[in-house]
Amino acid sequence: MALTSYAQQDDSLAIRRIADEILTNSKAYDNLRVLTKTIGGRLAGSPQMVKAEKWGEAALRDAGADKVYTQECMVPHWVRGDKEQARIISNRRDFVPPLNVTALGNSVGTGPKGVTASVIEVKSFDELESRKDEIKGKIVFYNYPFNPRFVKTFNAYGDAVKYRGQGPSRASKYGAVAVIVRSMSHSTDNHPHTGGTHYNDSFPKIAAVAIGLQDAERLSKRIAGDRSAKVFLRTTCEMRPDTIGHNIIGELRGSEFPDEYITVGGHLDSWDNCEGAHDDGAGCVQSIELLRAYKKLGIRPKRTVRVVLFANEENGTRGGRKYAELAKANNEKHLFALESDAGGFTPRGFMFEMETARRDKVKSWASLLLPYGIYDFDEVGGGVDVMPLHRELGIPVSELSPDSQRYFDIHHAASDVFEAVNKRELEMGAVAMSALIYLVDKYGL
Amino acid sequence: MALTSYAQQDDSLAIRRIADEILTNSKAYDNLRVLTKTIGGRLAGSPQMVKAEKWGEAALRDAGADKVYTQECMVPHWVRGDKEQARIISNRRDFVPPLNVTALGNSVGTGPKGVTASVIEVKSFDELESRKDEIKGKIVFYNYPFNPRFVKTFNAYGDAVKYRGQGPSRASKYGAVAVIVRSMSHSTDNHPHTGGTHYNDSFPKIAAVAIGLQDAERLSKRIAGDRSAKVFLRTTCEMRPDTIGHNIIGELRGSEFPDEYITVGGHLDSWDNCEGAHDDGAGCVQSIELLRAYKKLGIRPKRTVRVVLFANEENGTRGGRKYAELAKANNEKHLFALESDAGGFTPRGFMFEMETARRDKVKSWASLLLPYGIYDFDEVGGGVDVMPLHRELGIPVSELSPDSQRYFDIHHAASDVFEAVNKRELEMGAVAMSALIYLVDKYGL
Repeated sequence: MALTSYAQQDDSLAIRRIADEILTNSKAYDNLRVLTKTIGGRLAGSPQMVKAEKWGEAALRDAGADKVYTQECMVPHWVRGDKEQARIISNRRDFVPPLNVTALGNSVGTGPKGVTASVIEVKSFDELESRKDEIKGKIVFYNYPFNPRFVKTFNAYGDAVKYRGQGPSRASKYGAVAVIVRSMSHSTDNHPHTGGTHYNDSFPKIAAVAIGLQDAERLSKRIAGDRSAKVFLRTTCEMRPDTIGHNIIGELRGSEFPDEYITVGGHLDSWDNCEGAHDDGAGCVQSIELLRAYKKLGIRPKRTVRVVLFANEENGTRGGRKYAELAKANNEKHLFALESDAGGFTPRGFMFEMETARRDKVKSWASLLLPYGIYDFDEVGGGVDVMPLHRELGIPVSELSPDSQRYFDIHHAASDVFEAVNKRELEMGAVAMSALIYLVDKYGL
Repeated sequence: MALTSYAQQDDSLAIRRIADEILTNSKAYDNLRVLTKTIGGRLAGSPQMVKAEKWGEAALRDAGADKVYTQECMVPHWVRGDKEQARIISNRRDFVPPLNVTALGNSVGTGPKGVTASVIEVKSFDELESRKDEIKGKIVFYNYPFNPRFVKTFNAYGDAVKYRGQGPSRASKYGAVAVIVRSMSHSTDNHPHTGGTHYNDSFPKIAAVAIGLQDAERLSKRIAGDRSAKVFLRTTCEMRPDTIGHNIIGELRGSEFPDEYITVGGHLDSWDNCEGAHDDGAGCVQSIELLRAYKKLGIRPKRTVRVVLFANEENGTRGGRKYAELAKANNEKHLFALESDAGGFTPRGFMFEMETARRDKVKSWASLLLPYGIYDFDEVGGGVDVMPLHRELGIPVSELSPDSQRYFDIHHAASDVFEAVNKRELEMGAVAMSALIYLVDKYGL
């Protein structure tokens, strides 16, 4: 009992030291500024991806990594092309401002001449199915609202995102010529929110865009009240041959078990229509910050801590899959993997994909984490990039759970910029991650 | 046991209904836009105060209050005067941009000609005392940094705010001619943060300003490296005779105990150098939202719920004191009072000023509140405006505890504007308040 109490106090002080270091001397915010403001959006295959990889290597070296290296992986190379055009065309010939749209990631273009067609609005796939005879030759407008009743907004995203993912092919099945999807957001602005779509190869690939919320309402009203209304849509995006990308890795070598690994990371790529500040510059700089703080404080983990900046999460998840593939091929022993990819907001807990006994072990540390506002350990989940480790190798994985209220205001939209990230909130996320990894390394899982 | 479980489920559904209503149909954000954008800063005694009072009465009526009325109280009438001027003057005659300063609330002006004096920088009152012989004729610059190690930033504020409150008179005691205080903030920008100062009548009242953080660093470096450097400071603020202000009150009449009261509120006044969006427009519109949601859902509380928009919190706390004074004079029976005055950020819990047994009762409701991210019931505290009810009448009081990471970036600064408030976060605060009041009304405290 005395020992436990002593250990508890010892851990409490160790975590306090980590928090003090991060809250006082963090480089996370400055790193994020450089990544977002000097490189910006960095989609797989883009010149910015290459710059971001160089940035990542340098940032990990500056943070004090014992070893920095890369893992090559082939990544898709989707190019947005010209600025998207969308406008309502009507016999009324009144002035209507253009619709604010963004092509969905991995989507095909309309061709340089664009398409003009009537629009059929549906609120659900059920409605699409029940009106399948009306679809041919039209643009299908999925106007399914992001449900505000979900307190955790990722649940609203999970509820709505199928229209972005499956919507184009399901409409194409019935002869649609293009698709407009209401953005997966409850923002009060009009930015469209992009994100990957997934074609079903059984049907023709058709152009697909997301539309800002204000314009979704405008379009809905217009087509309801104006039978002559059509939409002209022009996108010139295209999928090019795969190209080479890299996971960027920095290690802090373990003192006792250097061949056992704990992975901590975020994804380095981002959509091209924003700065990728919350998604996922934040996760990258928080992971680098963990390494910097450990090094600065002389915390030498027992296992090797690997900070991984994953390639191509957004439109291929090739980096995460390559990482697990190599871990398996090299017969590596992995203890745990943690990702931060839910935004640089004030942290509330961690999601886990692992057995109940392990979750209970984490919960036994709750009193050490509560002073940092970390109390939520019940959700099931792991970051997209660490999930392959779980699926392929059974490794326990986790994702930081920041507060989610603001995330879908800016997710995959032009508003995901450096200025939307708060320095303290970003740092508190790094504190939470550093504390959890400290405990996992010390006590196992 | 079956009954308890049934009651638990019943309450869970009731709170879910409240949350759904607020997250779907809330007027809080729109109300806040009108208050901040059409009225703006609304210091006691200003024309904007009068407009805000009218707005508050109308908003409470629109929300469905059974009765709307006002409580008159005398409020201080401090006027900022001309835009503050502050600049470094030096024999070097190089170009130095002006210093960004804001007069402290209730402070006296320098007079129209301003003052020019050497600056002595001190890091603490201890340093002031040890250098008291050097103070005469100088401007004292309190450059005490906001401590980033506090996870709950209100603790950093509590640690630093004495320099704003007592600094001017403590410097004046030793012959200082004016005071510059480093802003109580860890923002990354250069906005100065105002706030009330409290003169000790034993010493001459001297002018006092807060300075933005970047300029605090600039000033510190300059006076360290340039012995000829002086500062010219000009403020023309003045305290005029007290004037009339009002608490604005809307009631939802209790069904069983109409003469027992539960108070919910925020303060209607704000500093004049900002829109007072987080401080405390948020608390006002959240309180009004509680009333609107109850009314809309047909929730008829057993006790009378009084929404109070308090007058003059910022530079006099006269509204809160008047409210308690009248409660005492009228021999009113008050069960509980809740204030929201810590910003419209994502909520984490409630602070309480009351006996342990009552706190334990609140904690017995924890599982009903956890789904809304509300878990922190351990802090001691109550809002400034409801504290007189506790002090004078022993009423249990509480304050909503939102996440505090962003608050002192914008607190009392030009950046406390509508755009700094997130709609969802604001609404989640209203959900938390409405859920707590529902339980307090149903089960007592």
